[in-house]
Amino acid sequence: MKTGRMKTIAALLVLYMGAMAAPAVFAAESTMPPPLMIQEQGSFAAGGSVVTGADGKTLHGDHLYAFYQIPVNARKLPLVMWHGHGQFSKTWETTPDGREGYQTLFLRRGFGVYLIDQPRRGNAGTSTVPMTISAKPDEQDWFNTFRVGVWPNHYPGVQFPHDSAALDQYFRQMTPDTGPYDAEVNADAVVALFKKIGPAILVTHSQAGGPGWLAAMKSENVRAIVAYEPGSGFVFPENALPPALKSSGGDVLAPVAVPADAFKRLSKIPIVIYYGDNIPDHPVGNRYQDMWRIRLEMARTWAKAVNAQGGDVTVIHLPDVGLKGNTHFAFSDLNNLQVADLMSAFLHEKGLDGVSTPAK
Amino acid sequence: MKTGRMKTIAALLVLYMGAMAAPAVFAAESTMPPPLMIQEQGSFAAGGSVVTGADGKTLHGDHLYAFYQIPVNARKLPLVMWHGHGQFSKTWETTPDGREGYQTLFLRRGFGVYLIDQPRRGNAGTSTVPMTISAKPDEQDWFNTFRVGVWPNHYPGVQFPHDSAALDQYFRQMTPDTGPYDAEVNADAVVALFKKIGPAILVTHSQAGGPGWLAAMKSENVRAIVAYEPGSGFVFPENALPPALKSSGGDVLAPVAVPADAFKRLSKIPIVIYYGDNIPDHPVGNRYQDMWRIRLEMARTWAKAVNAQGGDVTVIHLPDVGLKGNTHFAFSDLNNLQVADLMSAFLHEKGLDGVSTPAK
Repeated sequence: MKTGRMKTIAALLVLYMGAMAAPAVFAAESTMPPPLMIQEQGSFAAGGSVVTGADGKTLHGDHLYAFYQIPVNARKLPLVMWHGHGQFSKTWETTPDGREGYQTLFLRRGFGVYLIDQPRRGNAGTSTVPMTISAKPDEQDWFNTFRVGVWPNHYPGVQFPHDSAALDQYFRQMTPDTGPYDAEVNADAVVALFKKIGPAILVTHSQAGGPGWLAAMKSENVRAIVAYEPGSGFVFPENALPPALKSSGGDVLAPVAVPADAFKRLSKIPIVIYYGDNIPDHPVGNRYQDMWRIRLEMARTWAKAVNAQGGDVTVIHLPDVGLKGNTHFAFSDLNNLQVADLMSAFLHEKGLDGVSTPAK
Repeated sequence: MKTGRMKTIAALLVLYMGAMAAPAVFAAESTMPPPLMIQEQGSFAAGGSVVTGADGKTLHGDHLYAFYQIPVNARKLPLVMWHGHGQFSKTWETTPDGREGYQTLFLRRGFGVYLIDQPRRGNAGTSTVPMTISAKPDEQDWFNTFRVGVWPNHYPGVQFPHDSAALDQYFRQMTPDTGPYDAEVNADAVVALFKKIGPAILVTHSQAGGPGWLAAMKSENVRAIVAYEPGSGFVFPENALPPALKSSGGDVLAPVAVPADAFKRLSKIPIVIYYGDNIPDHPVGNRYQDMWRIRLEMARTWAKAVNAQGGDVTVIHLPDVGLKGNTHFAFSDLNNLQVADLMSAFLHEKGLDGVSTPAK
């Protein structure tokens, strides 16, 4: 009798999940969000290496750490979210002002979500190479670099909260490297993750953009990439490198050479790249803005190069599609629901959001 | 009409949660665990400090990081789980062999769960004090210290998997300090967490035991403590210090002096302390076992001291209650469901597992 009741309830839960597929409608009906229904969650290390000391003792390091959640009746392809420089999984979790970030928003939209800490960062802290952490105060530089404004002023209309509590949380979501930064080490760990979990969609932020391309060249399980503001590591065929770009502040953005056949693999998957607001279209004196001008320009050059080989890369400057005021962290900005809607539309358009056969 | 349907489903969900309150019955009916129903989840930083450089730039550090999940129809007091030396929140997540750890097990049992990374560790990486990380290979020492066995051999009957994949995950769940270890900094951050979240139950592992007592002395929101294998930082009234204990290997365990009135506060809450197996009751040559002999002895001395002031401290050596083979990580060992049952029984006995009025 109990079994029968559980089956009835299970059927209703599926019905309930159906209702959740229309979150906008649901939100209009209730101020309290519906519960998340998680079929499975957990964490593990992927990739990495082992070094052995003179006394035969070992150190396992250079792996990534992943925390994952799979909702009931999940869509077929999960999302793997990869933070940028100085950041960790928090990038995708609760926003600085306490709202739901991409981790929970996309669970609500039916996707499995894997959050990673890349090797030598956050919960993947063990590096096989020693490191000194300087604890140097420099947060004002990041406020500027992340285009919240020019310290201590916010950009007019910026999609970032103005209260000090949110800024406190924002600064505390930075964390230092615990070993030397190494794009190949990072890409290899991500390839190991995709080998373990199977086909999935890679979502990168900032510095993860470059090793994200490397991972996609190494693993066919990377079925699409959504890249928020990649700022370095743009790969090009070694025989067709574009010129390096230079910002007004002296920042140099050089292409990264890769074998032509490896580059070609990037033309096999859909890729979308988003950049936020307050990026000028001509050189300006504010070096923190101008460094993003050359990055957006390089991204457009990169898209053309991939698309020339039959690729499917779209670069979207958010103000061009009506989203104003976004910082370097569009996915956690005040308008992040709209930013997420754009990503959802991309995934739908490319046929990446299908629902798998529900588990029995 | 839709609203009506949602209300019906919501009522059934509550019924469903009722069924989950009897997990043993449920498990007998299905091989797939029921979905977790999470009302809310997210992460934030708590506590910490700010330093300012000569150029006026700031660094926010020394906070803790917390990831929390609150189930539907949660019990009134959530659990705050605090890792030990060289570890981070992973301690409580998926076990090395891929089973559910305390995070998910106690969510299933209806508790809100906060996992923390203490200041200068894991996702709370930013320290205001510089640090050099040595990347020294030493994992065999930890295999021994954590009483899995004497490398490379497992203790007979040890509740730890024998496969190399699990050992790989186990070693990769260690992570270095990113700043100097400071028990007061850690306790203060935990006090800030309890100030933010309100009354809760503190669950500590190993090195967190000591700063856990400090936090309970500083915050009345710490309503109970479950301590797994505290190994240092036993606090005593400064006018009644017991002698330091010395192991056969030369390890010295000294009491930590605190003001008598602060110590007295520990007598106001229920506390249970658990130790696993392979801890001798008399001095032995194996220093990795003998260091635990003196720690268990000190814990018993500590319990007597608190109880002499009207306290409620129980020390349980797991083999004495029929649980054999446990390592330093009883909560993630092969028999962790039984270990969790013991903790559940303690919480129930002390009236700490009541269910709050469901939110409207």
